[in-house]
Amino acid sequence: MITILAGTNRPHSRARRIADYYRNLLTELGDESQILDLAELPADFVATALYANAGTHPEFNRLAAMLDASAKVVIIVPEYNASFPGVLKAFIDGLTYPSGLQGKKAVLVGLSSGGQGGLLAMAHLTDVLMYLGTTVLPQRVRLPFINQDLNAEHGLNHDLSRQLLREQAVALLAS
Amino acid sequence: MITILAGTNRPHSRARRIADYYRNLLTELGDESQILDLAELPADFVATALYANAGTHPEFNRLAAMLDASAKVVIIVPEYNASFPGVLKAFIDGLTYPSGLQGKKAVLVGLSSGGQGGLLAMAHLTDVLMYLGTTVLPQRVRLPFINQDLNAEHGLNHDLSRQLLREQAVALLAS
Amino acid sequence: MITILAGTNRPHSRARRIADYYRNLLTELGDESQILDLAELPADFVATALYANAGTHPEFNRLAAMLDASAKVVIIVPEYNASFPGVLKAFIDGLTYPSGLQGKKAVLVGLSSGGQGGLLAMAHLTDVLMYLGTTVLPQRVRLPFINQDLNAEHGLNHDLSRQLLREQAVALLAS
Amino acid sequence: MITILAGTNRPHSRARRIADYYRNLLTELGDESQILDLAELPADFVATALYANAGTHPEFNRLAAMLDASAKVVIIVPEYNASFPGVLKAFIDGLTYPSGLQGKKAVLVGLSSGGQGGLLAMAHLTDVLMYLGTTVLPQRVRLPFINQDLNAEHGLNHDLSRQLLREQAVALLAS
Repeated sequence: MITILAGTNRPHSRARRIADYYRNLLTELGDESQILDLAELPADFVATALYANAGTHPEFNRLAAMLDASAKVVIIVPEYNASFPGVLKAFIDGLTYPSGLQGKKAVLVGLSSGGQGGLLAMAHLTDVLMYLGTTVLPQRVRLPFINQDLNAEHGLNHDLSRQLLREQAVALLAS
Repeated sequence: MITILAGTNRPHSRARRIADYYRNLLTELGDESQILDLAELPADFVATALYANAGTHPEFNRLAAMLDASAKVVIIVPEYNASFPGVLKAFIDGLTYPSGLQGKKAVLVGLSSGGQGGLLAMAHLTDVLMYLGTTVLPQRVRLPFINQDLNAEHGLNHDLSRQLLREQAVALLAS
Repeated sequence: MITILAGTNRPHSRARRIADYYRNLLTELGDESQILDLAELPADFVATALYANAGTHPEFNRLAAMLDASAKVVIIVPEYNASFPGVLKAFIDGLTYPSGLQGKKAVLVGLSSGGQGGLLAMAHLTDVLMYLGTTVLPQRVRLPFINQDLNAEHGLNHDLSRQLLREQAVALLAS
Repeated sequence: MITILAGTNRPHSRARRIADYYRNLLTELGDESQILDLAELPADFVATALYANAGTHPEFNRLAAMLDASAKVVIIVPEYNASFPGVLKAFIDGLTYPSGLQGKKAVLVGLSSGGQGGLLAMAHLTDVLMYLGTTVLPQRVRLPFINQDLNAEHGLNHDLSRQLLREQAVALLAS
């Protein structure tokens, strides 16, 4: 069971649509997966599930527990202000120690409306994940100009991106 | 008027105490300052003040407006999981465009209970701030082992740290 | 007098051609500049001008001294293996302390044949420059797909890139 | 056969001494290893073994070939100006494509005379290695204040550092 983390709490996000795409890809490759969409985070989790309250919020814990079920994680990282979303990091800040990410394998997918494709976001997140004891595979996939390449009619309409995601997924399954 | 941003919503944080220390330092150097403590963020701001709701939450806007009053900003960055706090980034993600940080001068202070002193946190935040058009002065101050060096009785009880903060403050005032 | 540093020792590099372009731009804006091309580094400088030999190699010193003549520096950074060129860093490693970069203002231009545009290279170099006491202005310019956009006949044949370089140069002159 | 890369060309470097220490550690753990010391690089390799000359310099190739013999690499990274040594990066820039680092497992050890312990150096190098297709294990070891902790009489005289290196080595062997 692989967990695909849609790394923003923005409702109906492009990150979620890429997560759906990735889940289909993993199904095609013969693997089970589940989506952890940060849009399901409790509205007040930064006040009720972090620091002194870490581990005490049932709804937060339900989402955190999805990580425990998986040895492998795909993290879809939309680029907000040249880094990862604050909400993604706040979710990680709320995981109890040792983090549900420790000892796992992870791959990262960055997306952006501009040309950077989440590159710095993925670099920053790699530092965080390595600190937590997660092995981040080297196959980083950048999806720049996602507004153009992801649309309602054709889905992810960019051949190279589709190929890179498939190669990444194959590498994750083989790891 | 300089704004000192205490970069976590943890109540009664060490970051806030360093912010208080910095405010006294600026007063000694003859400059006015105010503290923007992220502990005052609305509990549900990640659901009510970001994305489609950016700019619509009066209490969030009150905090964001404190940045507008200042051409210079001091950001106190506690290290959470080898980077900046998710909540600090989520606050930045909620600023309307152009960000209240654009065109400003900033200095960064990192703190950690371990030995890194917020180094990666400050490096990551520098990438974010440069993207937003903030000039980050090169005087990064690391405060590692802050649990030992900051205590109720003696305040910031570390001579080199006090000296580095003063040099940084002088550089900010001169910039 | 502004120094434009072409950040590779590759002979006849694209970085040098961008440096030439930038020099013309600065001339148009009314400012004098000179080009420090790392192609002029002594072939054996990593053995004869670093560490115990720092400061002792006349030809290396001649290049290093060009930095001393300038309060402002433009660094053209080709992307090699997702970071700055090793030779650019080795040149910096050979500067005697305090570095000829201390206290200066700098702007960065990244170039790449791929789509990253030197983004990580500029982020890494910013960490180095801040450590050395250089103020790096926030206007980072990425020039991705430079093989397509820079050609013998038309020079830098990309309107947005030309505009971003001009805005950056204006910001540097105003700083 | 594991290759331990001493990441500077400084003669008789502390990085080399840590490499020697690491080799003994691997021997104790029952594994064979060899040391690739960048002090053996040809003096003029940046002019004769990079770019158009990549792959043509027999002495450079001999060192590069040591990587080919190993599926696992330990990289000892002294901190120079808050990043990796320029010479280490120039060595990597000279590897022919696909790099001798592609598909390998690597662990990083940072060292510094100051308190950072090579943290940014390792973060920057991780970006480079991931780009090259190397899997970097999350166990980064920082060796700050190495001037105090490494001495002629007692070797690496710091219990926690010795423990962290052993844990890292065990993780590398198990990977």
